Amino acid sequence: MKVDGKDIRPIWYDSTTQIVQVIDQRRLPHEFAVMPLTSVDDIIVAIKELAVRGAPLIGVTGAYGVMIAAMTAGDGQDRKEIIEHECLRIKDARPTAVNLAWAVDRTLSKTLAKDDEADQIKAACDEADAISEAEAENCRLIGEHGLPIIQAISEKKSGKSVNILTHCNAGWLACVEYGTATAPIYTAFDRGIDVHVWVDETRPLNQGSRLTAWELGKHGIDHTIITDNAGGHLMQHGLVDLVITGTDRTTYSGDVANKIGTYLKALAAKDNGIPFYVALPSSTFDWEIRDGITDIPIELRDADEVRRVQGFSNGQLTTVLVSPADSHAANYAFDVTPARLVTGFITERGVCGASESEVKALFPDLSPAIAS
Amino acid sequence: MKVDGKDIRPIWYDSTTQIVQVIDQRRLPHEFAVMPLTSVDDIIVAIKELAVRGAPLIGVTGAYGVMIAAMTAGDGQDRKEIIEHECLRIKDARPTAVNLAWAVDRTLSKTLAKDDEADQIKAACDEADAISEAEAENCRLIGEHGLPIIQAISEKKSGKSVNILTHCNAGWLACVEYGTATAPIYTAFDRGIDVHVWVDETRPLNQGSRLTAWELGKHGIDHTIITDNAGGHLMQHGLVDLVITGTDRTTYSGDVANKIGTYLKALAAKDNGIPFYVALPSSTFDWEIRDGITDIPIELRDADEVRRVQGFSNGQLTTVLVSPADSHAANYAFDVTPARLVTGFITERGVCGASESEVKALFPDLSPAIAS
Repeated sequence: MKVDGKDIRPIWYDSTTQIVQVIDQRRLPHEFAVMPLTSVDDIIVAIKELAVRGAPLIGVTGAYGVMIAAMTAGDGQDRKEIIEHECLRIKDARPTAVNLAWAVDRTLSKTLAKDDEADQIKAACDEADAISEAEAENCRLIGEHGLPIIQAISEKKSGKSVNILTHCNAGWLACVEYGTATAPIYTAFDRGIDVHVWVDETRPLNQGSRLTAWELGKHGIDHTIITDNAGGHLMQHGLVDLVITGTDRTTYSGDVANKIGTYLKALAAKDNGIPFYVALPSSTFDWEIRDGITDIPIELRDADEVRRVQGFSNGQLTTVLVSPADSHAANYAFDVTPARLVTGFITERGVCGASESEVKALFPDLSPAIAS
Repeated sequence: MKVDGKDIRPIWYDSTTQIVQVIDQRRLPHEFAVMPLTSVDDIIVAIKELAVRGAPLIGVTGAYGVMIAAMTAGDGQDRKEIIEHECLRIKDARPTAVNLAWAVDRTLSKTLAKDDEADQIKAACDEADAISEAEAENCRLIGEHGLPIIQAISEKKSGKSVNILTHCNAGWLACVEYGTATAPIYTAFDRGIDVHVWVDETRPLNQGSRLTAWELGKHGIDHTIITDNAGGHLMQHGLVDLVITGTDRTTYSGDVANKIGTYLKALAAKDNGIPFYVALPSSTFDWEIRDGITDIPIELRDADEVRRVQGFSNGQLTTVLVSPADSHAANYAFDVTPARLVTGFITERGVCGASESEVKALFPDLSPAIAS
């Protein structure tokens, strides 16, 4: 996507310098900084500390991490074990995002199919590139398949602005291009449909007010930042036509793990008869888990992310303490929205309902082994 | 209530210096500062900028504002008109809180019943004192009437900690003593019941993480600060036994205007079969409005409260910019929770259901003129 007129992605591999580069999203929207990742530890820190975040991007980053593991594993007899061990460490960096394990395992398998070190590195690099391109293409297709939903609302409103609420950042910063939740929005905007986005700030890390607002602003899309508390009120008053979020992991039965607070917006959408869509590439489906609420592990992050807020003050990134220093805090990173609250999934293959039968019907090739 | 072992209230009139003093809640929890209010403008600024906040406390502050108006109106022929005009200005400082208009009108009426300046000032002071004492007593009674609800859960859990979620600050800082939502919690704790409070941080102004956490901590009550996004997840996982909030205005039909985000918690409580109580003194009932969602005016505050966050950094209060500086933001301060989501009201007279018939049955003397 464009940043100040230049085409850029949130991650790329510079084949000349042989270095993986990422946009350091911790510094956005205040500073646009590019960060090299040259070791597996760099990869893990970038994922853990959210320099890169978002299910598809984490997957791509993990895949390049396998390449770095292959580059740095040495030529000892335990080379294979080292690479495998490094891959376990990478997968452990964010337990909720299913894409990470998926992308790492896929790249690892291609890598270890080769015997020679150079071949392994090339296989890992090719696979990481392929995953990256596939994610970009998936997001483009999600945009195409989501477009008619926005188009229909726009026509019903006689061209008046379509108000779309989104939570967290499932934009191109979270993916490679277009984003997931934002893909239909970018596509609609690019086709001349009048859209306005309500951006949930998304505490504790404010991915909405920091990243989604920045992305949309750079693309020229009208948007308004709101607190996470505000969406229900807006829906009660007819100010939201549609909710679209991303997801970090979605069960084949339709339960959606996404940034903490998504469930509350889904409840409000249901209570006010507003469609609630989740946009995702099929790599985000978990084909093993049926009950998302009981079985998806929910990451508990550092409590200081709740007690403190980072922002810009006097020209520099500053963290302020909001609460009493000695109060306990808990930082659940995700929640699970049950399928009954989800209107549908917008995927790279099209739109389907949030039920096992509809998901399986759209992805019969990916869901062979599910016992009913 | 106690602060570092000293009895203190959030507002008091020092008869020696003839100055109204308040705790400046904007500086909590980082600094405990007392602020003198010596003019009607001081009163208005303190209310508007949330140095004092919370429905009962705003009412008491407004009542003392009438006294200050009587002190400063001069002795010209237009003295009555000046006082009345100042009262309109005070009432205008926060449009949603019904207590403010109620307390100002009541104090104004007692004031203007006297002709002499000194008598007017004394009448205003007496009435403000009386309102303050009545609010304290109401909160004490709310605590008594709410206690059995917590007690019953504690018994059902065989004495295991009762987990209570609250939103915003409806504590003693918002009232005069005990608080409204917190009154049953303080009462239960003081009677030896094991309680733990989930404190919603309550963006944008973080009255939960700043004020409720501070209050509870000073009283020794176990509490955990969470983002406003987290409550739904906790409820899904059986980690919340009870929700209690305050309210800024409640219709006689049972619709509850409270801090933005309350509606989302009520939806989650309903979805998970968790009791959702609202604690309020009867002065918070609005006997004119039937439909809270369409008819309660919702204050739209400064968008910079959403874009920025205030906290403590390097020993001083610091405000950081979170979002892009040029993104729009909207700051709806309240929402309305429909009566169908409210389990009951905890009032100074007892507990009743959130319906016109039950509210009228408990307060027949206050609700005479309501047409059905």
